[in-house]
Amino acid sequence: MSIRIGIFGYGNLGRGVENAIKQNDDMELVAVFTRRDPASLKINTKNALVCHADKLSEFTDKIDVMILCGGSATDLPTQTPEVAKLYNVIDSFDTHARIPEHFENVDKSAKESGKVAIISVGWDPGMFSLNRMYAGAILPNGKDYTFWGKGVSQGHSDAIRRIDGVLDAKQYTIPVESALEAVRSGSNPDLTTRQKHTRECFVVAKEGADKARIENEIKNMPNYFSDYDTTVHFITKEELDKDHAGIPHGGFVIRSGVTGANLENKHIIEYSLKLDSNPEFTASVIVAYARAAVRLSKEGVCGCKTVLDIAPAYLSSKDGAELRKQLL
Amino acid sequence: MSIRIGIFGYGNLGRGVENAIKQNDDMELVAVFTRRDPASLKINTKNALVCHADKLSEFTDKIDVMILCGGSATDLPTQTPEVAKLYNVIDSFDTHARIPEHFENVDKSAKESGKVAIISVGWDPGMFSLNRMYAGAILPNGKDYTFWGKGVSQGHSDAIRRIDGVLDAKQYTIPVESALEAVRSGSNPDLTTRQKHTRECFVVAKEGADKARIENEIKNMPNYFSDYDTTVHFITKEELDKDHAGIPHGGFVIRSGVTGANLENKHIIEYSLKLDSNPEFTASVIVAYARAAVRLSKEGVCGCKTVLDIAPAYLSSKDGAELRKQLL
Repeated sequence: MSIRIGIFGYGNLGRGVENAIKQNDDMELVAVFTRRDPASLKINTKNALVCHADKLSEFTDKIDVMILCGGSATDLPTQTPEVAKLYNVIDSFDTHARIPEHFENVDKSAKESGKVAIISVGWDPGMFSLNRMYAGAILPNGKDYTFWGKGVSQGHSDAIRRIDGVLDAKQYTIPVESALEAVRSGSNPDLTTRQKHTRECFVVAKEGADKARIENEIKNMPNYFSDYDTTVHFITKEELDKDHAGIPHGGFVIRSGVTGANLENKHIIEYSLKLDSNPEFTASVIVAYARAAVRLSKEGVCGCKTVLDIAPAYLSSKDGAELRKQLL
Repeated sequence: MSIRIGIFGYGNLGRGVENAIKQNDDMELVAVFTRRDPASLKINTKNALVCHADKLSEFTDKIDVMILCGGSATDLPTQTPEVAKLYNVIDSFDTHARIPEHFENVDKSAKESGKVAIISVGWDPGMFSLNRMYAGAILPNGKDYTFWGKGVSQGHSDAIRRIDGVLDAKQYTIPVESALEAVRSGSNPDLTTRQKHTRECFVVAKEGADKARIENEIKNMPNYFSDYDTTVHFITKEELDKDHAGIPHGGFVIRSGVTGANLENKHIIEYSLKLDSNPEFTASVIVAYARAAVRLSKEGVCGCKTVLDIAPAYLSSKDGAELRKQLL
């Protein structure tokens, strides 16, 4: 029988989840839940329902796992514990510093309801976390490096858009190639924020706006830009829409460590992603973990989990014998 | 309390395991077992015993997990099922085609004894298998590529040494850079054996040996070399010992896949290793999984497992809350 999936929230991530479900023969989308007017939503799956969020509790016998596609700032901290009272759930909560607190809240709720919740699923947190975990366990004597990009940072793009005189903007985070090479050499460099990444901004200014002031405000914005070498390009709205419509991203997790009686042997473990669509890749990771959540639930497991707690084989639709034969 | 470890077999891998144990504060080496005369073995761990393999059964209350460091051709197929009758065990069985059969044998034995066995631990099989597993589950619509090297292939070096007139030899497997780049571009090329790897041989010929004949025999050796572009260099024994003493290796696992309503977005997942010492890195992976075996055993689990069956958090000495805080 298919894994029956619900999606709560239909933005970029929700649409990505819908597409990812279609790539997995053992899954079907049952319903999309929205806080907007359901009549205003056009989804891409025949036979799937569009329902108002008010109806969320009415599908407990029709949906095996609910995928929460809201934002980490305000949606997920309340939604995930709430929905875990009714369903197995997956979210992509990505405010790193607040994960322990979110975990506790969701764990309490999921243990009470007897459901499985897997939080912070995606690529960072998610696949990058996993790779930091494996590499650190294998090479205890070593150092971790994470680089992001080249890719669009939504938060930084939004910050530019809030500047007076800015009509629209996209910001790319770019890892510094020489820093990457230094890490790959095994020299274990200490790298400052400025040495690891640069920021490139494509900005559409309003007519008559003072571009010099906008550029200055961007480059000196604390937390977002002031610690980086930032380049600002002013372009037209047409150029922005034509050349910067995508949401690519990616990055690198590298661990450099040593082994041997005299620590004489260096080892480099590198994991990297090059993604045309950040939300679609995140959605693809989420959907694989949705499969794991349903399996664990059937085994009687409950409570909150993260990618660190899930055995890899649970992500696949293939059975153990098949996996051993094809992948080991 | 420490995890008490036994090592069975003290070649390159056994010595690597001994060194890896020293990097993990929660582990101690109790004894090394050998089929040689124990008096002939000098180990690097004070307080650890050296015992003849005959005594293997006498430590069941002193050793939590036995790490089997024999070869896959003749040692492990019999040793792992045998030793799993007495101990939790880890091996690095790497004859890919025979893993399903080995798994069945070990599983039967470990289930009868109530022990945990984790087989085929290392990097391929091992970390590379894991990465094929994760990447395939995340991007079902895609293609896997595995490249090995640059590194020393023991089997190929041995094959050269068996040629008449050869005193010693080392063979390097080298991935073809243009093939790697084609894969990374997302073009999903079909690559022949010859297009993926080249082989470079450093050969010490006996005095008066016919080098042209040796080179010819190497290049035309079926299975080992005839499907590859092979380069042969004749060097002196001194040069071989000075420049080719190490056992480096490494490789790349790349999955290229697509997502989106019209499969319009490409994604590349790449995992790579660059290792100064193949056996020491393999040993480091094994030791992390030894920790997992002991934990699973304490939870009452038994039977044969592979890296695909083990939740990542079991590899670490840190607890769940710490891992979530530091790694997610």
